[in-house]
Amino acid sequence: MSDTKSGPGATRRTFLKGAVAAGSAVAAAGAARAEGDPLITEVQPWAQGFGDGVDATPYGLPISHESDVVRRNVEWLTADTISSINFTPIHALDGTITPQGCAFERHHSGAIELTKQDYRLMINGMVDTPLVFTYADLERFPRENRVYFCECAANSGMEWAGAQLNGAQFTHGMIHNMEYSGVSLRTLLEEAGVQTEGKWVYVEGADASSNGRSIPMEKALDDVLVAFKANGEALRKEHGYPVRLVVPGWEGNMWVKWLRRIEVTDMPVESREETSKYTDVLANGIARKWTWEMDAKSVVTSPSPQSPITHGKGPLVITGLAWSGRGAIERVDVTIDGGKTWQTARLGAAGVDKALSRFYLDINWDGSEMLVQSRAMDTTGYVQPTKTQLRGVRGLNSIYHNNAIQTWWVKETGEAENVEIS
Amino acid sequence: MSDTKSGPGATRRTFLKGAVAAGSAVAAAGAARAEGDPLITEVQPWAQGFGDGVDATPYGLPISHESDVVRRNVEWLTADTISSINFTPIHALDGTITPQGCAFERHHSGAIELTKQDYRLMINGMVDTPLVFTYADLERFPRENRVYFCECAANSGMEWAGAQLNGAQFTHGMIHNMEYSGVSLRTLLEEAGVQTEGKWVYVEGADASSNGRSIPMEKALDDVLVAFKANGEALRKEHGYPVRLVVPGWEGNMWVKWLRRIEVTDMPVESREETSKYTDVLANGIARKWTWEMDAKSVVTSPSPQSPITHGKGPLVITGLAWSGRGAIERVDVTIDGGKTWQTARLGAAGVDKALSRFYLDINWDGSEMLVQSRAMDTTGYVQPTKTQLRGVRGLNSIYHNNAIQTWWVKETGEAENVEIS
Repeated sequence: MSDTKSGPGATRRTFLKGAVAAGSAVAAAGAARAEGDPLITEVQPWAQGFGDGVDATPYGLPISHESDVVRRNVEWLTADTISSINFTPIHALDGTITPQGCAFERHHSGAIELTKQDYRLMINGMVDTPLVFTYADLERFPRENRVYFCECAANSGMEWAGAQLNGAQFTHGMIHNMEYSGVSLRTLLEEAGVQTEGKWVYVEGADASSNGRSIPMEKALDDVLVAFKANGEALRKEHGYPVRLVVPGWEGNMWVKWLRRIEVTDMPVESREETSKYTDVLANGIARKWTWEMDAKSVVTSPSPQSPITHGKGPLVITGLAWSGRGAIERVDVTIDGGKTWQTARLGAAGVDKALSRFYLDINWDGSEMLVQSRAMDTTGYVQPTKTQLRGVRGLNSIYHNNAIQTWWVKETGEAENVEIS
Repeated sequence: MSDTKSGPGATRRTFLKGAVAAGSAVAAAGAARAEGDPLITEVQPWAQGFGDGVDATPYGLPISHESDVVRRNVEWLTADTISSINFTPIHALDGTITPQGCAFERHHSGAIELTKQDYRLMINGMVDTPLVFTYADLERFPRENRVYFCECAANSGMEWAGAQLNGAQFTHGMIHNMEYSGVSLRTLLEEAGVQTEGKWVYVEGADASSNGRSIPMEKALDDVLVAFKANGEALRKEHGYPVRLVVPGWEGNMWVKWLRRIEVTDMPVESREETSKYTDVLANGIARKWTWEMDAKSVVTSPSPQSPITHGKGPLVITGLAWSGRGAIERVDVTIDGGKTWQTARLGAAGVDKALSRFYLDINWDGSEMLVQSRAMDTTGYVQPTKTQLRGVRGLNSIYHNNAIQTWWVKETGEAENVEIS
């Protein structure tokens, strides 16, 4: 081992551009730790014996130490867990892909058990030839692979009335982002032959709720997928096994699970799920008719109430997620002073159309309290609004489609709280 | 429902470019199915009752019907399961992302259990300041996110001696592809301050094997990651929880798990894992010294021995994976006649540097036997070799770094077998 020289090396200050010498606090602590730590100086038990063999977990699960990184329900939100929601633990994740196992669930009559053998998909209505596909039939059509986010229209819905749920998982966790493999809906519609009068499709699932939704033909023929795999493997039961619809950029309720029927129609059905539910009631009591696309939105996932700062002042990674149903994320700005000043965050990768982007802002925290917010901009030029701006347009009657800027009050202790600032 | 017109509609023939009217076989079957199928005409049990509530699986697992899509060991390959290998079920996956739960494992003294609290990473040797990082320290440095494949150098190793293992999972399943989040190794090395004489790093893990490997400084300062998350969530125990090294494009043995120490040295250590193991013995008995980069390679995952054709002749999706440790996949060609004629496959997405690409060839299978192969080309212009070409260069003494073209003999029954053709 070389000499333990004190003080930061010349190269050490380069790592945090815009946060001069922020690294030195970590380095200084790291240098002090280099001596006298039994975890370094003594051979530990795990370095002496054998660990698990490769047959221990034919299909692996997270290690027990991560058992708190799971989907969670909020008991008081809905009457029962059958028609309820759980939330992705976004406060504990990084990157952009959401593992299926912790991707939020929402179903209206529970997650049903369906086999590939029993699976049928019917296309009927205004088509030349009504068709019924088995699962094996679907596997014979040309496939596509794309990463898309899926956000429930009610994500952040409780926050219309003010700061309520104390954690990014609960305020913004009705979102996931997976790589889907499946067949273009266009391909299947072309198989059946859409008649000239056919301007809409009505899609429904095989569960008791059926969750029927109308989709305009232009979207149906654009990028909609009849998907059977997510992140490479079969859809999980709770995500619609064996087949779900993927409607990129549009509200999650339209992503019908256990997809059983596609009817080509000349008009929207105006079903329960697109009239009394999933519409936005404006200040004058009138509901906006169609609000399919999810506007640009972002949230800081750490620090946040479930992901406090535990290491005191000095270098701090502020990170979060941004997305837009209308395009790719172009830029995310972050403020730590409640919007007085903004800094442009670094994107983990170039924005992907209708998929999550990860952003980072590396700062040198001085230990004083912060009001942390993020603000997304997409490729259409749209800028994520404040709550005040959104309420100015939509009033206070809304539940769905809340894409307002979120505020976390990070205290001197490093703990964070969901707050609302004017 | 509209009239059930017979015969394919005009638009129906457009879906398979290059395979004229291939869709009509599926469509004709689908039209016949539209009537008299009780799964269509009768209300099924799953459409009547409630399914599982959202609290059923806080962390979800695959549905029981997919219980065969798991990592598998080959008992006769190694003496015990502690120092053994299992294989990713690539024959059953689609897309490019590999879920952690079914991503292959290889460890030399078993998968150890380590907590974040007990985790330490030491950087020592030819540095200005030896440093020890805790897990919490690592979380304070700027992060990167990238998707990379990890391939064991021994992947396809048994096939040097001829066609042996009857399934893509076993011939090519020592590969996975995940989105990693972590800190650039360059950042940590700059913290410690690499001295002028420091030309290599020696990396080792906290398990009993320690699995030490030497990496030249140029690579260490390039794209190597000290990663703590894969596909957004914590690394699984068997993938190195809480921290592993990611060495993009280079053999998996260098991706040290449970990473505990990085020593900056002026020379390679020439450890067991880089001398008697993981080197290629040529025909003259001399081992090639360094063979870190994984050359361009591909395999058809379906049809394959574990994924036979079950639907008879007509439209067939031929699909597989391609990758290169030297760049991105630029093109994949597929033959069904053992290399007499080749067709360029469709890539699921533009090739990504040092990450898996998914390819598809949509054909109209006439029901006769096929010799199916794929051939990858990367952005350096390199073309995946035949077994004959590879043996011409390397002889027959090799185990590692077999990137030769794989052949599946698909019989008239749709069953497939691993064969070798000259």
